[in-house]
Amino acid sequence: MTFSPQAITDAAIASFSKADNPRLKQIMQSLVKHLHAFAAETQLTEAEWMAGIQFLTATGHQCDEVRQEFILLSDTLGLSMLLVAMHDGAKHGATEATVLGPFHTPDAPPLPNGSDLSNGAPGEALYVTGRVKSAQGEALAHASVDIWQADAEGLYDVQRSELEHERRARGLIQTDAEGRFAFWSVLPEAYPVPTDGPVGQMLLSTGRHPWRPAHIHFLIAAEGHQPLVTHLFREGDQYLDSDVVFGVRPSLVGSFAHHAAGKAPDGSVRDQGFWTMDYEFVLQAV
Amino acid sequence: MTFSPQAITDAAIASFSKADNPRLKQIMQSLVKHLHAFAAETQLTEAEWMAGIQFLTATGHQCDEVRQEFILLSDTLGLSMLLVAMHDGAKHGATEATVLGPFHTPDAPPLPNGSDLSNGAPGEALYVTGRVKSAQGEALAHASVDIWQADAEGLYDVQRSELEHERRARGLIQTDAEGRFAFWSVLPEAYPVPTDGPVGQMLLSTGRHPWRPAHIHFLIAAEGHQPLVTHLFREGDQYLDSDVVFGVRPSLVGSFAHHAAGKAPDGSVRDQGFWTMDYEFVLQAV
Repeated sequence: MTFSPQAITDAAIASFSKADNPRLKQIMQSLVKHLHAFAAETQLTEAEWMAGIQFLTATGHQCDEVRQEFILLSDTLGLSMLLVAMHDGAKHGATEATVLGPFHTPDAPPLPNGSDLSNGAPGEALYVTGRVKSAQGEALAHASVDIWQADAEGLYDVQRSELEHERRARGLIQTDAEGRFAFWSVLPEAYPVPTDGPVGQMLLSTGRHPWRPAHIHFLIAAEGHQPLVTHLFREGDQYLDSDVVFGVRPSLVGSFAHHAAGKAPDGSVRDQGFWTMDYEFVLQAV
Repeated sequence: MTFSPQAITDAAIASFSKADNPRLKQIMQSLVKHLHAFAAETQLTEAEWMAGIQFLTATGHQCDEVRQEFILLSDTLGLSMLLVAMHDGAKHGATEATVLGPFHTPDAPPLPNGSDLSNGAPGEALYVTGRVKSAQGEALAHASVDIWQADAEGLYDVQRSELEHERRARGLIQTDAEGRFAFWSVLPEAYPVPTDGPVGQMLLSTGRHPWRPAHIHFLIAAEGHQPLVTHLFREGDQYLDSDVVFGVRPSLVGSFAHHAAGKAPDGSVRDQGFWTMDYEFVLQAV
């Protein structure tokens, strides 16, 4: 008597049938089914899977307190963005969500509306204005707008060991009574995800580039509404169609306008050229 | 415009379309397709997937030079055994294969045919006899038979730190001109896979036991034939129907006979009861 591959798949699925937690049971059984289907479809060999085991092991060993290579793997396989798209509120009229990414921190400095949050970050000046509204069009006052971005050198503050705990191009602002907010920062630039680990090797081996198009992160929270985690991308970026983490959605590409030195929208006078960008965010009610 | 989850899956699959290596391209595209299908089928949430990321990270951190938790994960999800079953030669009349497992070493001590390889391992005496043949029924002389097993306490020699590099219940024997081999060892007992890591936690959380039924490992190699990696299981073991790594195949359950003290088949006289087991191995030509 010969046991078929299908019999092994069936036995592995059945082994989870006694799990007490019905959701865990569902997830493990679906995982086994699809994992085995992948192996069967490719007729994966034991030698190939040993290379996979070594890849996963190296990915685990790359993870420490400041680096999460498995999140990077999930991001570069499109899984992180798939989960965002499956669960976001865009289908109810809210602004589309995108990936949180690994550079959010819980300690963005609270700043008055209209502040300059660049704090010495290199880059051309950028003045961002926005409004936060409900899907019914009502202004959302006192919403918190958490902002973080890379600078002109493609680095976040947390990637600059010389900064220690100083925050740059990062801040937390509240909307005013009309749901408006504004801040000065720097023009974001495209940057590569870390390529010195197993995920970078995977990208290189498969002919993929490691670049993310220039963007600014937003995490917007208002009472009675679902928090919105999204980016605004810089229009014209060469990587908009090939973001290594599949985070770009056309509705999230912002219009960035360049201006010569002179008077800015907030009344200040700039002695160098600067940029402006304006966007309206819509949050879904809980 | 709203991007659909399917559009993200399609983009992630397409991102591998320029891979130079066609096999790697096929594997990565199939992996992304099935990984995304798993997430879509379960409507996996970002919080659930973060628990998954943490599980994978802990699994990587558990791996070191003597412990491979990702192989254990692959084994307990049935993937290792699926690959064995997909590729083994049983469909051409050869003995069925099963998983190699993590306890094979390249330095089993070469011993004369008929030797006692137990070397002090605790357990009841067992005398194993076997033949190695081709699928055409010809005896395979001078085949190498690599044997390893757990002892009566469920431990392999390499799991006993007090042994250092001493080998117990492990040996390498050559078949004679008629393809026959024999050795003395100890009766194997069931044992649990390591449960002190993330995989053990996964088994516990899903109501699965960690036990493998008692077995002896064989790796048999003969010129002109594919190496056979298999086990012989002990009939009557309570875990034959629920091996935690899905390695049992009915054709691999051996008949173990118990005998009272007295004369053994090799002519020796035993002052305590002992066991015998006989099996015929068939190798597939390359």
